[in-house]
Amino acid sequence: MAASSGIAIAKAFRLENIELKVEKNAVTNVDHEVKRFEQALESSKGELVKIKEHTLETLGEDKAEIFEAHLLVLNDPELINQINDKIQTELFNAEFALQEVVNMFVSMFEALDNEYMKERAADIRDVAKRILSHLLGVTIPNPSLISEEVIIIAEDLTPSDTAQLNRQFVKGFTTNIGGRTSHSAIMARSMEIPAVVGTKTVMDDIENGDVVILDGLDGKVIVNPTEEEIKEYNVKKAAYEAQKAEWAKLINEQTVTKDGEHVELASNIGKPEDLKGVLENGGEGVGLYRTEFLYMGRTQLPTEEEQFASFKTVLEGMKGKPVVIRTLDIGGDKELPYLDLPKEMNPFLGFRAIRLCLEMQDMFRTQLRALLRASVYGNLKIMFPMIATLDEFRSAKALLEEEKQKLLSEGQQVAERIELGIMVEIPSTAVLADQFAKEVDFFSIGTNDLIQYTMAADRMNQRVSYLYQPYSPSILRLVKMVIDAAHAEGKWAGMCGEMAGDETAIPLLLGLGLDEFSMSATSILKARSQILRLSKKEMKNLAEKALQMKTTNEVIEAVKEFVK
Amino acid sequence: MAASSGIAIAKAFRLENIELKVEKNAVTNVDHEVKRFEQALESSKGELVKIKEHTLETLGEDKAEIFEAHLLVLNDPELINQINDKIQTELFNAEFALQEVVNMFVSMFEALDNEYMKERAADIRDVAKRILSHLLGVTIPNPSLISEEVIIIAEDLTPSDTAQLNRQFVKGFTTNIGGRTSHSAIMARSMEIPAVVGTKTVMDDIENGDVVILDGLDGKVIVNPTEEEIKEYNVKKAAYEAQKAEWAKLINEQTVTKDGEHVELASNIGKPEDLKGVLENGGEGVGLYRTEFLYMGRTQLPTEEEQFASFKTVLEGMKGKPVVIRTLDIGGDKELPYLDLPKEMNPFLGFRAIRLCLEMQDMFRTQLRALLRASVYGNLKIMFPMIATLDEFRSAKALLEEEKQKLLSEGQQVAERIELGIMVEIPSTAVLADQFAKEVDFFSIGTNDLIQYTMAADRMNQRVSYLYQPYSPSILRLVKMVIDAAHAEGKWAGMCGEMAGDETAIPLLLGLGLDEFSMSATSILKARSQILRLSKKEMKNLAEKALQMKTTNEVIEAVKEFVK
Repeated sequence: MAASSGIAIAKAFRLENIELKVEKNAVTNVDHEVKRFEQALESSKGELVKIKEHTLETLGEDKAEIFEAHLLVLNDPELINQINDKIQTELFNAEFALQEVVNMFVSMFEALDNEYMKERAADIRDVAKRILSHLLGVTIPNPSLISEEVIIIAEDLTPSDTAQLNRQFVKGFTTNIGGRTSHSAIMARSMEIPAVVGTKTVMDDIENGDVVILDGLDGKVIVNPTEEEIKEYNVKKAAYEAQKAEWAKLINEQTVTKDGEHVELASNIGKPEDLKGVLENGGEGVGLYRTEFLYMGRTQLPTEEEQFASFKTVLEGMKGKPVVIRTLDIGGDKELPYLDLPKEMNPFLGFRAIRLCLEMQDMFRTQLRALLRASVYGNLKIMFPMIATLDEFRSAKALLEEEKQKLLSEGQQVAERIELGIMVEIPSTAVLADQFAKEVDFFSIGTNDLIQYTMAADRMNQRVSYLYQPYSPSILRLVKMVIDAAHAEGKWAGMCGEMAGDETAIPLLLGLGLDEFSMSATSILKARSQILRLSKKEMKNLAEKALQMKTTNEVIEAVKEFVK
Repeated sequence: MAASSGIAIAKAFRLENIELKVEKNAVTNVDHEVKRFEQALESSKGELVKIKEHTLETLGEDKAEIFEAHLLVLNDPELINQINDKIQTELFNAEFALQEVVNMFVSMFEALDNEYMKERAADIRDVAKRILSHLLGVTIPNPSLISEEVIIIAEDLTPSDTAQLNRQFVKGFTTNIGGRTSHSAIMARSMEIPAVVGTKTVMDDIENGDVVILDGLDGKVIVNPTEEEIKEYNVKKAAYEAQKAEWAKLINEQTVTKDGEHVELASNIGKPEDLKGVLENGGEGVGLYRTEFLYMGRTQLPTEEEQFASFKTVLEGMKGKPVVIRTLDIGGDKELPYLDLPKEMNPFLGFRAIRLCLEMQDMFRTQLRALLRASVYGNLKIMFPMIATLDEFRSAKALLEEEKQKLLSEGQQVAERIELGIMVEIPSTAVLADQFAKEVDFFSIGTNDLIQYTMAADRMNQRVSYLYQPYSPSILRLVKMVIDAAHAEGKWAGMCGEMAGDETAIPLLLGLGLDEFSMSATSILKARSQILRLSKKEMKNLAEKALQMKTTNEVIEAVKEFVK
């Protein structure tokens, strides 16, 4: 699977996974064993702090946070106490106690069918390996020592491995396991080196020194290619680099179709640190600021001040360009352990987002106050997630209004006018969009959820993922209902799902009249380049035909035909 | 909560819950203890066989099946072996071993947020109590000994309790716990005695001999009423009985609106035995035969012959009236342990119904063959559940066609023409109904699922059940899309969700042009009586207004206003 774009041709360097073997021994001197464990923790900490600093210099704050997360694991009293307990009460040696407790945590996290938790499990495993190497006195191979141009071949790359890669020499990497959202894939994209992950076989197929072509565009790995293949891929590589140079020129361009219609290309962000990428890629706004990250990876709710500071940073950073901040969208696959919510049989159809916020009003009001106070620092638009009925929107709006009045009476400043919109990600809301449009200021279509509810198929569930069909005529019809409803009331409609940055979807969305496309920052320039070459009028014809089609495949064929 | 209609006024009879106290003793003579347990099992079996026969005589085969299920629990080797194990290896006394194992099974079943499994847990608890009473030599109170007119007051009624009630003397019952779908509620409806369940307090509030008014229409219980109240409720009772007598006259009537438009009132059934109720209540067809029950409560798949026999019985029993049989709709909250399907994070959005059948083709083909062979015995229509895309319908249809050709080449008889339809219960299918209507013969709208997907709210999840809104304008719009699409192609549209028998929904559905209403048999006469009094033209005006409303409450108010 392609995880990071680009093409590399170089020699293979196998990053062997040193097997750290754990034996179970009876411990007689418990105090000594506890001390051994403490020392291993200290050494690991020292090492992690160094790696973190190195990463901060070479890759920036965003990536260095991974090691901040690792340091948090090292300091997690839950984990550390359980290990000490096992040493002291069960007389396990430190290595075995570590392994027992870590396996328990890891399998607990992995049992949750949840990408976020799986990444946490990977973090714990990575940290445990580091501690273990110190306990056993084994040196973990150090990829930072590589000093010739190579392509890394590995079972998997831990975040520490990736962060230690020397960009000067490492031209790309490929792994047996991992997916597009694993840490290593994210870091490859940020380092802008090609990567192909989840191949299952590269560690079996490739020896040290083999010549490898890594095609991060189509997710291919070719071992010991022919002269012909090398030639072919050198051409492909040159073409890709020329294209990237072309896209880079568009940073300060407006996004205007061939026939002169302007649309807005905005970006989805999760943290203030992501702003840098938005500006470097010519984003015209922030179409979705997910506030969940403020609430995650901690033990209690963020304060009003913490939230205010984050919102202010983003609003100021965007210098008057629009910033759509979504209120807390927790629940479903995103859990907050400290809220202690009950387990649900179908969390995607459960107590989440606005449903939860309207009940946990103290928490919600704190966020609304932070938003209102930040509103004077830029062009803020507030958006509520998972709205299914007008009653819910009205309730949320009423709470906002109450907090606004309170702030004003306290003498605080609040922007005169803040646009108030909703995510359209529940079918009922799309179907009733004409009524919603009379009361909201804008819509942002959340296709990830909208598609899964409309098709009644969990997009995380591999057995039904074939039903995740963004180009289905039924999805296009719902999108059209939303856009038409907005326009009929003089409002705007955006989209902040993955679909908005998808090159097959963009012509259709343009034709349906979408006003704002919000996507990951790295997709913006490519999307702009595509839109500059399209005529809105022609895309309208294409969209009208697609709306009358019967199946997803017919739509895909038509787009190919039309925009070839 | 009202669980069975009607009004009763009588003295209270408290059915005390004898607390069977279990002590933990060390066992020295293991063989003796195992024998004690065996004898208790045998006595329980004898007793259950007698109750089963009594039930068969007084209430019919359908209700007697509850005790068949209890006998299955008694013979369950998994359960029995684990108890024997605990006696033999842990030296527990039989009572304690029984309690330990039963608690484990019960809490396992109850942890699943699943009505079916919860009922299984209740069965096991009921059986365990019976065995325990034999082990302890305690007699469980016998409600069949009641010999004056009473209303039963109980913590809960086990299926055995309910089956032993003497209809001559027991005028109704009310319980602290239980819901509309608990065994006791179902039996009350079948015995046609009023019941109010889940009151939480009746056992605290009512003493033996208190006079009680039980209002199974509005779910009220009044203790020691005033003269005034007794008078009032006698009037209400007489009115209800007059109304029932009025409804009974409609058994052989057509269902025609005041302005002369005919609709079809059909019934949902789960087993061939349910036909009796359909015919006794003047059903004009079977709108939904759920074939899941054929697959449940057993250890392997039903054979083609078993299925054929059931389908034939139903088709013949309906004497040429339409019978819509739905192919297997398993998965979601309906599990088949012997299929050993993987656990899913969101089963309602998972691998179920047609999705599963298209992959487990052997199982599906067996059912299709049974249907095709049965088709010559009546007016069969086949319906596929959970269709989300036209591709799925086409695949299912192709398999049916293949099996038809095989049967014909084997010299078997198959009806010339079998209507082929789909459940519309996924939003995408409603939105694309115009395209589906070109290829299917009919639609049946499954509102239970359609509502939960359209609102993205699990209807089993109490925290979001407020979003289960059948009268939401968005739901009505989807229903309209489906009906209009069918009519545009000369096809018919029915509905087989709970909404079809709901007195607030019926005026709206009539106005939207629904052709067939399929509901539980006991709702048919009431629905017919309602429709006879309505004008389709007026309901069309009502529906058109409702489609332009903003919220569920507006719609409910409008219906009340219009049909008051």
